Amino acid sequence: MSSIDLNSDIGESFGAWRMGDDEAILDVVTSANIACGFHAGDPSQMRATARGAAARDVTIGAHVAYRDLAGFGRRFVDASTAELTDDLIYQIGALRGIAAAEGARVTYVKPHGALYNTIVEHGGHARAVVDAVRALQGGGEDLALLLLPGSRAGELAREAGIEVVGEAFADRAYTPEGTLVSRREPGAVIEDPQLVADRMVRFAEEGVLEAVDGTRLRIDARSICLHGDTPGAVDLARAVRRALEDAGVTIGAFA
Amino acid sequence: MSSIDLNSDIGESFGAWRMGDDEAILDVVTSANIACGFHAGDPSQMRATARGAAARDVTIGAHVAYRDLAGFGRRFVDASTAELTDDLIYQIGALRGIAAAEGARVTYVKPHGALYNTIVEHGGHARAVVDAVRALQGGGEDLALLLLPGSRAGELAREAGIEVVGEAFADRAYTPEGTLVSRREPGAVIEDPQLVADRMVRFAEEGVLEAVDGTRLRIDARSICLHGDTPGAVDLARAVRRALEDAGVTIGAFA
Amino acid sequence: MSSIDLNSDIGESFGAWRMGDDEAILDVVTSANIACGFHAGDPSQMRATARGAAARDVTIGAHVAYRDLAGFGRRFVDASTAELTDDLIYQIGALRGIAAAEGARVTYVKPHGALYNTIVEHGGHARAVVDAVRALQGGGEDLALLLLPGSRAGELAREAGIEVVGEAFADRAYTPEGTLVSRREPGAVIEDPQLVADRMVRFAEEGVLEAVDGTRLRIDARSICLHGDTPGAVDLARAVRRALEDAGVTIGAFA
Amino acid sequence: MSSIDLNSDIGESFGAWRMGDDEAILDVVTSANIACGFHAGDPSQMRATARGAAARDVTIGAHVAYRDLAGFGRRFVDASTAELTDDLIYQIGALRGIAAAEGARVTYVKPHGALYNTIVEHGGHARAVVDAVRALQGGGEDLALLLLPGSRAGELAREAGIEVVGEAFADRAYTPEGTLVSRREPGAVIEDPQLVADRMVRFAEEGVLEAVDGTRLRIDARSICLHGDTPGAVDLARAVRRALEDAGVTIGAFA
Repeated sequence: MSSIDLNSDIGESFGAWRMGDDEAILDVVTSANIACGFHAGDPSQMRATARGAAARDVTIGAHVAYRDLAGFGRRFVDASTAELTDDLIYQIGALRGIAAAEGARVTYVKPHGALYNTIVEHGGHARAVVDAVRALQGGGEDLALLLLPGSRAGELAREAGIEVVGEAFADRAYTPEGTLVSRREPGAVIEDPQLVADRMVRFAEEGVLEAVDGTRLRIDARSICLHGDTPGAVDLARAVRRALEDAGVTIGAFA
Repeated sequence: MSSIDLNSDIGESFGAWRMGDDEAILDVVTSANIACGFHAGDPSQMRATARGAAARDVTIGAHVAYRDLAGFGRRFVDASTAELTDDLIYQIGALRGIAAAEGARVTYVKPHGALYNTIVEHGGHARAVVDAVRALQGGGEDLALLLLPGSRAGELAREAGIEVVGEAFADRAYTPEGTLVSRREPGAVIEDPQLVADRMVRFAEEGVLEAVDGTRLRIDARSICLHGDTPGAVDLARAVRRALEDAGVTIGAFA
Repeated sequence: MSSIDLNSDIGESFGAWRMGDDEAILDVVTSANIACGFHAGDPSQMRATARGAAARDVTIGAHVAYRDLAGFGRRFVDASTAELTDDLIYQIGALRGIAAAEGARVTYVKPHGALYNTIVEHGGHARAVVDAVRALQGGGEDLALLLLPGSRAGELAREAGIEVVGEAFADRAYTPEGTLVSRREPGAVIEDPQLVADRMVRFAEEGVLEAVDGTRLRIDARSICLHGDTPGAVDLARAVRRALEDAGVTIGAFA
Repeated sequence: MSSIDLNSDIGESFGAWRMGDDEAILDVVTSANIACGFHAGDPSQMRATARGAAARDVTIGAHVAYRDLAGFGRRFVDASTAELTDDLIYQIGALRGIAAAEGARVTYVKPHGALYNTIVEHGGHARAVVDAVRALQGGGEDLALLLLPGSRAGELAREAGIEVVGEAFADRAYTPEGTLVSRREPGAVIEDPQLVADRMVRFAEEGVLEAVDGTRLRIDARSICLHGDTPGAVDLARAVRRALEDAGVTIGAFA
């Protein structure tokens, strides 16, 4: 791989409620998926996050979601394709405005939570994500899409001429089929920072991840998803970055 | 006056709830103040309204408000200057995204309801409106501000180099001091279409409105605010436009 | 049938937005399904509706829904059973408080929109509806459930000792299987007031409705659902009531 | 004083966002002010908090607020008296429902944040609080009001026959006039647990608090407000309770 991107979901506080250590994780990643107000992230939180990203030359992406603050965007909402498309355009536009106020730009879109998982297979909602991005292309401000490799949305996006970037999950175990082991299963989350770092170095160098049964998986990804919502998560993120640097891997934003 | 603008608040439906006859009023006005989701206007409504405006070459403005869906933005909310600024940037950005999806642009901002009235005197909130607009200037997409003549926000905006346009109210009575007669007083709303139309022709030609006691008021306005939320309102709006055209007044958007 | 109930969904305005002619329909029905704030109905609207119902001795039911104001509760939301249960208890409790302020009581619960349809088959959400009602039984304030006949929720509710009442739809066509003809099909809605009234009289007298192909359906219902959201709907509701009265059918609330 | 109550604001998490250590503080207090969903507290959070309170025989109060989730109820909202009254009834009713589901009861109401401070002087909003409580009295479920001593709302409530209980703030400095030193001033918050504990023992025994200039203030309060939103706050709360117990003060809920 020529270079690898490190992304994280940030700006997930809302009003008086704090979530995640955004400042710490911004020091580690190259791409920041900023919540846009529908599942998390009020405008002032969005702006503080955009400012923090801009100050570190971290690329800004719109972390878009179903309209579901109470459920943090983790619940499927059976929206029509048209209304979901417009909800997504609204969120991306809002973050563009916020970013502009900080002299920055939004260069990609990553669906969040239930939307992220739904568009792996749901044609209508996959279409909505693609339609929303397509509606905002042009003027030298094209948006890429950061997705789970192999999703229906990725397929539709490529057909529509949108750049699609896959991501791998640093601390998640994979099945032999290349999907994530469900969080309900034991061993779904890999907690040993050394093991996670080693896996990511190998992935960055060879594009390969080992599944739970030892199968070598070729994952079509140019970005690694890191978490920043616990002290342990930030430490793990730092360990991954350090190991990649030590291995001489070039780290850089994809967009 | 070289030309006069006709503006109206539209796109104020939300979800399953309808408000106003947007299609009818879009045929009359030159500028559409589109609700941005904080007091009214969901993303799909915003998009339908932007499409309707774009199809008629009606100029699009962001009708921004306090975050208060339950109160329709008619209640003062004691937000800090910073959080209000960010709320406004968010709304303007969201509408810019929606407008872009329809190949259109947002060229001005009009504060709605309680915010509109508050910034006549409230320094902090006036500052927030100005800061929000200033944060989004540049790139050939400068925004004007549509305001009540004589407001504190207008003063601050001019100091900041923002184009400020005042508006006159077609169907409202004015006090000798040039403020609106309170809706709680008798005669606050002028209902006779002929009288309203005559007043607006004179205003467009001479810049003068007659107060309730006959005082001749010189109103610093280049736009006339019309309503579209009742059948009667639409008829009155049409009567004003027709009378202006008959009098040979040039009608055109200010932005 | 000893007596038949007439119910309608009311109190569906929200803030500045009006929906339905509540006063007119309250003169026709015996049971009012009052929206509880999650899909429609702000507290003041709820109170006005409760007052109107109490003044006419119309029975009050809680029209509970998914938390989805933007979607008017018409979209499935994949809530967990536990969180949905608590959302429903919250809504019923809120309406009980509002009703108490008007000297009235809530005697039944009717799920709204997507929730209404989902619990026909969805075990988890059916369970949530039953758990919510069961959690509030006792103290002489037992709640009945108003449902589509044959739903999974009805089954679970009966097992839990909750009184379940089925409803028939006055203006909807039925398939030979006893389900409603989809609104996407022609003829789904019966618009002729005379025909609707005749069908309802026969239903009240014999418990029978004729399906689109002439099949005689035995519908397990003691309540008829009427609409009040258009002038035509109110006229149709009145026609049904008048026809039932003329036929000597006893009209009365089930709860 | 015959006995002193210890109250705390709890249940202030919302959806995925956590706030405060509710379990720890419930072990210390005798009265729990539970957020009702308008500034914090979703229904499942409310239920978990009610369950925790009920399990410890901690008295439950409704912590009611302006409708302002984004502002955590800390911003004045210029609601009409009527709509605020109904918003409060709704919140109290909702918590009553949730409490009933846990076999518990709501015995008092405490306004939160901006509402708490506003009703010290604002006649209309003070009236709304009183009207809401009055609307729900009766049936053996009377509600008391927990307020700042000397507020306008307290006056109106007493006139309406509502039991009013004043509260003292454990860790706040008082002016010689008996009001709280503004948080913007140095020394507004007393952080030394020993000092706080000593002050509260003296207050419980003599009804007296020392102002910043040494003035002895007689505070008309039967409850002490403790915080639980930081580890330090919980330790301080425990220190206060322990000191009161060591001094032989009877600790018990007021309602």
